[in-house]
Amino acid sequence: MKIGFIGLGVMGAPMAANLGKAGFEVRGYDLRPGGRTVASVAEAVTGADVVITMLPDSPQVEEVLPEIVEYGGDNLLYIDMSTINPETSLGIARRLPHALDAPVSGGERGAIEGSLSIMVGGKEEDFQRALPVLQAVGRTIVHVGPSGAGQTVKAANQLVVGGTYGLVAEAILLMEVSGVDPAKGLDVLAGGLAGSRVLELKRHSMVARDFAPGFRIDLHHKDMGIATAAARQAGLALPLTALVTQLIAAARAQGHGSLDHSALLKVIERINAA
Amino acid sequence: MKIGFIGLGVMGAPMAANLGKAGFEVRGYDLRPGGRTVASVAEAVTGADVVITMLPDSPQVEEVLPEIVEYGGDNLLYIDMSTINPETSLGIARRLPHALDAPVSGGERGAIEGSLSIMVGGKEEDFQRALPVLQAVGRTIVHVGPSGAGQTVKAANQLVVGGTYGLVAEAILLMEVSGVDPAKGLDVLAGGLAGSRVLELKRHSMVARDFAPGFRIDLHHKDMGIATAAARQAGLALPLTALVTQLIAAARAQGHGSLDHSALLKVIERINAA
Repeated sequence: MKIGFIGLGVMGAPMAANLGKAGFEVRGYDLRPGGRTVASVAEAVTGADVVITMLPDSPQVEEVLPEIVEYGGDNLLYIDMSTINPETSLGIARRLPHALDAPVSGGERGAIEGSLSIMVGGKEEDFQRALPVLQAVGRTIVHVGPSGAGQTVKAANQLVVGGTYGLVAEAILLMEVSGVDPAKGLDVLAGGLAGSRVLELKRHSMVARDFAPGFRIDLHHKDMGIATAAARQAGLALPLTALVTQLIAAARAQGHGSLDHSALLKVIERINAA
Repeated sequence: MKIGFIGLGVMGAPMAANLGKAGFEVRGYDLRPGGRTVASVAEAVTGADVVITMLPDSPQVEEVLPEIVEYGGDNLLYIDMSTINPETSLGIARRLPHALDAPVSGGERGAIEGSLSIMVGGKEEDFQRALPVLQAVGRTIVHVGPSGAGQTVKAANQLVVGGTYGLVAEAILLMEVSGVDPAKGLDVLAGGLAGSRVLELKRHSMVARDFAPGFRIDLHHKDMGIATAAARQAGLALPLTALVTQLIAAARAQGHGSLDHSALLKVIERINAA
């Protein structure tokens, strides 16, 4: 099976490599020459059974879409694994008969290990066709609904993750300023109903103020924009999501865009700095 | 060893029973006659090596404190396992030389199973003396700092738990209103970085709108009052904690005080109801 893979960045490059290891014939394209095996989108798409995009945001996906439509065969299966607005995914599905939105979570490490979680929106028959391909890059692969549903679930995921960082940050500051060792306190929290994957993975680095990425504030800021837009589109007011979005925007405004998203702690600190 | 146990409610009764099973001589007192083995605080305290209180809030603790001071021996170890304001715990420690604040998490089930998490504030020597007693009722027992520190960690725990319910509630509504099956979506979230003990234990009941307690909104409302007061006392502005506090207060105002704290979902729903 021939796969055209567009977007060989931090996530895309190891995903394309895992597809190659699984025996697929992969033609990889990126704007930057290093690592790519073909020189144009047209070349990646022409004759492909499946085209995958793994791009930063909606504009980049919309930029390559016309060539995918033009050079793709009638039976082309298009899997967009970028995290973009659900509305954009719906628009894509109107232009291509076999399109899936399949954003991922699990980060660079998940991409390298082929252990990503993948949230898939689209038609059941297309999902079944995509499954052998997705199994080469992910471990938890769930068909969550029609076109756009994958992006909606990803947006829900990001609002919960961003909010959890904010809550843990506030808990750390409350303990520190009250004279309590936050490391000991968070050990207790991690073992009870307050426990979370964020506490499990990040409590030590947050207490130590180690904000090496990881997943960058810039990207989480983009994702909160998607969550906010998705809520507006659905006609929903989500107060915690709104506040988390503002706090992450503040992190970016304060120059922390390239730090890990756990650097949300710095915003809560700055609110309280003399 | 003789233990006076004051407060034989949903939590206190099974805790006192576990102390009895562990071989301690327990004299249990409650305002309500049923289940108590002595008829007054004075009788529970006189001659006791250890006095434990497990009461609803600060006023109840302050009400029994004078009798504990009056009838307790010089070497009495006083362990307050109620969830109250850290400032109140500090005040108690000024009146009794051997006082620990030791609030718990784990709920009624943890109390029955003797598997509570216990956050202990106070002097190291008093903590060591309390340990055999606490081991009869809890599993994770951590000395987190000086007097009041146990209450501060409990407050931090409750702000994270309350906030997590709010975030999960907003994620559920976003998915539902967008036409995504929330059960499938939450399965993906539970397996990734958005995963939490709240998602693990409560996502099915929240989607099904089953809000049988569990831990009541009324109690979580009290606990958010403690978290807010602790933050004020520490001179801290905590924006997410503030919003979570308001949302839980709204749940109570809307008449959901006796439902499980996951009923915070009803507040997010009502904000968006026509």
